[in-house]
Amino acid sequence: MGNALKSIVDIKKVGQIEPIREAHIAEAKKYIDFLAKPLGSLGRLEEMALKIWGIFGGGHLNLDKKCTVVMAADNGVYEEGVASSPQNVTVLQVINMLKGGAGINVLSRSAGADVKVVDMGVKGDFQDHPNLYQKKLGYGTANLRREWAMSHEDALQGIQAGMDVIEDLVDQGYQVFGTGEMGIANTTTSAAIYMALSGCSSEDAVGKGAGLTDKGLELKKKVVEEAIALHKPDPEDVVDVLAKVGGYDLCGLVGCFLGAAYHKRPIVIDGVISAAAAYAAYCIEPHIRDYMIPSHCSMEPAYIKIMESLQLKPMLLMEMRLGEGSGCPLAFKLIDSAMAMVRDMATFDDIQLDTDYLIDLRMDEQG
Amino acid sequence: MGNALKSIVDIKKVGQIEPIREAHIAEAKKYIDFLAKPLGSLGRLEEMALKIWGIFGGGHLNLDKKCTVVMAADNGVYEEGVASSPQNVTVLQVINMLKGGAGINVLSRSAGADVKVVDMGVKGDFQDHPNLYQKKLGYGTANLRREWAMSHEDALQGIQAGMDVIEDLVDQGYQVFGTGEMGIANTTTSAAIYMALSGCSSEDAVGKGAGLTDKGLELKKKVVEEAIALHKPDPEDVVDVLAKVGGYDLCGLVGCFLGAAYHKRPIVIDGVISAAAAYAAYCIEPHIRDYMIPSHCSMEPAYIKIMESLQLKPMLLMEMRLGEGSGCPLAFKLIDSAMAMVRDMATFDDIQLDTDYLIDLRMDEQG
Repeated sequence: MGNALKSIVDIKKVGQIEPIREAHIAEAKKYIDFLAKPLGSLGRLEEMALKIWGIFGGGHLNLDKKCTVVMAADNGVYEEGVASSPQNVTVLQVINMLKGGAGINVLSRSAGADVKVVDMGVKGDFQDHPNLYQKKLGYGTANLRREWAMSHEDALQGIQAGMDVIEDLVDQGYQVFGTGEMGIANTTTSAAIYMALSGCSSEDAVGKGAGLTDKGLELKKKVVEEAIALHKPDPEDVVDVLAKVGGYDLCGLVGCFLGAAYHKRPIVIDGVISAAAAYAAYCIEPHIRDYMIPSHCSMEPAYIKIMESLQLKPMLLMEMRLGEGSGCPLAFKLIDSAMAMVRDMATFDDIQLDTDYLIDLRMDEQG
Repeated sequence: MGNALKSIVDIKKVGQIEPIREAHIAEAKKYIDFLAKPLGSLGRLEEMALKIWGIFGGGHLNLDKKCTVVMAADNGVYEEGVASSPQNVTVLQVINMLKGGAGINVLSRSAGADVKVVDMGVKGDFQDHPNLYQKKLGYGTANLRREWAMSHEDALQGIQAGMDVIEDLVDQGYQVFGTGEMGIANTTTSAAIYMALSGCSSEDAVGKGAGLTDKGLELKKKVVEEAIALHKPDPEDVVDVLAKVGGYDLCGLVGCFLGAAYHKRPIVIDGVISAAAAYAAYCIEPHIRDYMIPSHCSMEPAYIKIMESLQLKPMLLMEMRLGEGSGCPLAFKLIDSAMAMVRDMATFDDIQLDTDYLIDLRMDEQG
């Protein structure tokens, strides 16, 4: 385990997270190298297949039960003017997601995946709904430029909530997860936790989010810098960082990564917010990296840095900046392709034997 | 029409290729901008949706009938030692494709796409098969280092064959196409036609294909340079270039691009071989570019150059070098996601009206 979790959540489970077994990977590699293709020529599909074989201990799988988990919460720092959308978009989009009409629903359906929304702390209440987990920690966090975003206790509860949601979904048979979010101003909190944990500059961490102006970007950098200077979050303690400059949604996402690794399930990283949570989870327990699958390349500066730290590379260049987890269902489709490769492709043995369609093979005497 | 088709194939159809209508694109843009998301935030999915709406004159489509067309042929230049696989892999893989066990079958099935193989000139004969078009021009081309790969007449017939296959598939209801190939040594012919048409250096055009050594790469460059010096193909005449340094599969692929544009169907570019054919088709008729959709980023140097010329950008970073059209079914999945966005996403009107899940919305007084 890493040393960044001084305040421990559900220690038994976090302590039991295991790396992927080398023996499984070796077995997978042997099989995939015998498929009828030049060695390694299916690139990242092979890489994903190796990882998934490693995670499940076998590769001839149909990962039919997929779920994009959307952590929703509001952020007090919104009042500093760091976001390009009005704050009530969080509430409205959660409703839209429960109705099934948001981008993440449409893209997930197209990938055969379900969407579950978790109210981690939206400024508004929701009726019960089969696709909603009620885990509200408050009606938005406090404004991190002036005070801690939340208490240590709330941050711990938020991580626990994420782990609990994954556990429930694993119990329902879900095999692979995507990490989404909905929360106006959460590229600000993501940049802040990444800066606090990595020690990088605001230049390297802060971007324009869903569509900020140049002036808005400068303000956003200033807000994040001031918050870190004010609260001095301890980079060795992820809970301290999340409490001081994070968000309820980020806590939930960190819990998702921990939960997926504990339950040995692959989990897809979306854009910069999900990546910042992935990085925080990695600081807690480096083995979690083994369970992570990247999706699309975010245009936020922190994203690139985080992927370098995690030694992961995005597979999709979609120029998307919607959030909601929208890269995950696209990656689910690529995962399905990787699984199909393992299940259905002929081996070298198969193609040498099957010559009954061939009537007249004129062998090249010179070649 | 471009000036690169001095020897004209099926002139009536090539002359009737039209650009996408600006009015359709404008209509599509208006609709997509009213979907409930920050403007442009679904990036390349929006770009594809615009293109497809433009091509079909409407965007609320289900592109269910998809087909990866695999042009198969052998190449005489194989005997120069420019390929890492034995030549009979072409025959064996065509059989494997007809049996349904090749990479392209598996990936296409996973994308809901069919595979049709066209024997353009494989060194071997095949029994009839429902997924095989018999268009054989010869048992492999001549060795382009020593003589013309084929006659002008063969090159014209090859282009015509590709157009005919697309026409037949359009008649069967296929709506979107992928461009695949199978032919040992065809990264050599692809590099040669791109060098001949663009005037670039062998450094910029020739790569390691499916897995050549450094020494093999140097030889491959030398072979291509010598062939161009010997035959002096006319860069203003695509048919001359294809005849002198091309391949039967490349001729067929050029015909596919021409046919898809004529019939107003989107057509996906795979790796460098398909891209070289796309470039040749673009030299014949620049409007064809409007119908092209890129897929994954090939690692061959010519690919990057060609995409720059076509002003297209790959969407997938898969580090694949299998060929066969393997990037196309991955792009088909992204096309489906783009179509789902248009068909199913809520508009701004929808989300403002749907507030019945909301009980207690505490509006932010300050925000």
